[in-house]
Amino acid sequence: MTSFSFDLKGTDGRARTGVISTPRGDIRTPAFMPVGTAATVKAMLPGSVRETGADILLGNTYHLMLRPTAERIDALGGLHKFMNWDRPILTDSGGFQVMSLASLRKLTEEGVTFKSHIDGSKHTLSPERSMEIQRLLGSDIVMCFDECPALPADRSRIAESMELSMRWAKRSRAAFGDRPGHALFGIQQGGLEEDLRGQSAEALREIGFEGYAVGGLAVGEGQEAMFGCLDFAPEQLPRDKPRYLMGVGKPDDIVGAVARGIDMMDCVLPSRSGRTGQVFTRHGVLNIKNARHQNDPRPLDENCSCPACRGYSRAYLHHVFRSQEIISSMLLTWHNLHYYQDLMQGMRDAIAAGTFEAWQTSFHDGRAMGDIEPI
Amino acid sequence: MTSFSFDLKGTDGRARTGVISTPRGDIRTPAFMPVGTAATVKAMLPGSVRETGADILLGNTYHLMLRPTAERIDALGGLHKFMNWDRPILTDSGGFQVMSLASLRKLTEEGVTFKSHIDGSKHTLSPERSMEIQRLLGSDIVMCFDECPALPADRSRIAESMELSMRWAKRSRAAFGDRPGHALFGIQQGGLEEDLRGQSAEALREIGFEGYAVGGLAVGEGQEAMFGCLDFAPEQLPRDKPRYLMGVGKPDDIVGAVARGIDMMDCVLPSRSGRTGQVFTRHGVLNIKNARHQNDPRPLDENCSCPACRGYSRAYLHHVFRSQEIISSMLLTWHNLHYYQDLMQGMRDAIAAGTFEAWQTSFHDGRAMGDIEPI
Repeated sequence: MTSFSFDLKGTDGRARTGVISTPRGDIRTPAFMPVGTAATVKAMLPGSVRETGADILLGNTYHLMLRPTAERIDALGGLHKFMNWDRPILTDSGGFQVMSLASLRKLTEEGVTFKSHIDGSKHTLSPERSMEIQRLLGSDIVMCFDECPALPADRSRIAESMELSMRWAKRSRAAFGDRPGHALFGIQQGGLEEDLRGQSAEALREIGFEGYAVGGLAVGEGQEAMFGCLDFAPEQLPRDKPRYLMGVGKPDDIVGAVARGIDMMDCVLPSRSGRTGQVFTRHGVLNIKNARHQNDPRPLDENCSCPACRGYSRAYLHHVFRSQEIISSMLLTWHNLHYYQDLMQGMRDAIAAGTFEAWQTSFHDGRAMGDIEPI
Repeated sequence: MTSFSFDLKGTDGRARTGVISTPRGDIRTPAFMPVGTAATVKAMLPGSVRETGADILLGNTYHLMLRPTAERIDALGGLHKFMNWDRPILTDSGGFQVMSLASLRKLTEEGVTFKSHIDGSKHTLSPERSMEIQRLLGSDIVMCFDECPALPADRSRIAESMELSMRWAKRSRAAFGDRPGHALFGIQQGGLEEDLRGQSAEALREIGFEGYAVGGLAVGEGQEAMFGCLDFAPEQLPRDKPRYLMGVGKPDDIVGAVARGIDMMDCVLPSRSGRTGQVFTRHGVLNIKNARHQNDPRPLDENCSCPACRGYSRAYLHHVFRSQEIISSMLLTWHNLHYYQDLMQGMRDAIAAGTFEAWQTSFHDGRAMGDIEPI
């Protein structure tokens, strides 16, 4: 059995490219992970997700523990078999979504109790329970259970929260145990404060993890503040392990994060946007519901090789979006995920070739052009 | 260019098997046509519909004339290109759906005026306008514009309606014109009355069509009454042309219709049921939302080769249905369409082999078994 390892193959400035090896397959970095919340990347079959170029999916512990439950997924052979995806899966710890979705939350040193947003049933998450759930799911990359304060927050709140998360990181490591071929990632906290981020990184290094996430960003602080933090945070983490920026982001967020030394990201944006008619192309963002597309025989992007662009006009995609047909979500999600994976491949190639700065200029120039003129 | 033709290859009792040749490809009969109402078979990509074994789709004139409009589809290169399906398409005349969906309908000798169910806009359909719309769509098999009374209705209403439809059939034939490679089908009316059906068939024969539909059934009369009518109606139509039963039906309706000499059918049932969780298998019907499937690791049908059965447990399909995930509609629709096309292939093979009676016994025995026992 291949053990979990990270091979840093090249750098260009602070940007990095490499390969994470796991028993379920390689993950080329920088990597974008589509989100499969409830054991499905919404509106996509797993084979189609793979066709877009995804090496790994993200699953949500919070959603899966509530429905269909981790115990049920375990009894059915684990999440990979359940959702028909045999490549790597990363699961979050559940902590972040408890804070954003559940009601009647109560936070103690032990963990969090809360009520399900689905049926009001009462549940507990702690470092130990989160590790147990992620083991039952069969996750390849397990995330530490942490607490993440919304920004802005005052420094003392951020420091207290970070220190709690570091104690939970230690408990997560102990509860994870010895699981060859599986990885546990620590999560750096500390808000936008360089010294707190440094203390958090030091605490995590002492415990020791197979990878390290920059947590607590993309929570409302804005791109400038996030990039400001990413100017120092990744460098505080071990160079020889993967660095994962959680919940990011828009295409330019992703490019800026990679330029600052991030190796992995996840976001619901490409799939959620596919369902709301927002489309990402080399030329920025377009909204398919706009009347300008109604008679337009051109594809979303003439250079894109996804099924939506190879088979359909903007006029068709406009029609099926307006008609609320399921095929609209299917095609636009596929296109957006394809665009995101193309973006990652472009960055991997440019970093390997030492041309990442020129690639970034071209990326920003393309977006500045805006969508093609209406016919 | 291949012209439109029908080659009757074999019979077994009254059941028939053959091939309809068109410039866009062959249609193996008996044929089941999935319904692509608004230029999409709901929750399916066209390539997937083809993978189930479909040779031809049905498009709805009423829906398409309202949105995105026939003129827009024509300007975009026709319905085949618009919806990315290059094989044959049959379009209905719009008449039936005006009666079932539109409001403020007014019927005259000339045609029907009505208001759109989408935006209340006013429209007219007549034999001439229906032929024009179906030509703009680029339909391969065009249906005559007819009137179809709901059953039960009294004999004089049925006779009047049938006579109006026959006058409209003549106008449809004239308006259709000379279109090599395209076919116009006449529609027999006359309710459940053998003599009126005979008069209708005679009127249609005199006009002359490339195929003939049995219209006015599957409108609430029940299977016994429908089969009673099918015991005589198909035989009244020309033997050397395809016979199409409109809007049918459940699997046992389809088998009974084929046994009575029908060559083509269409129905929304397999696709609509896929969205509501109703699943067709060799053993009858099951509802995936039932709790009995919650922990069931088995596929819907262990002998089925569709993606839903090859890749997923009943437990997974139950989970994604309950979670209202789009993949539920995608997988269950695919399964149901696959089941329907398997059914048609089974009948084609059995009729060709002269074993259709034994095949029917096996079909009914399988359904009588009911779904597999819960685990």
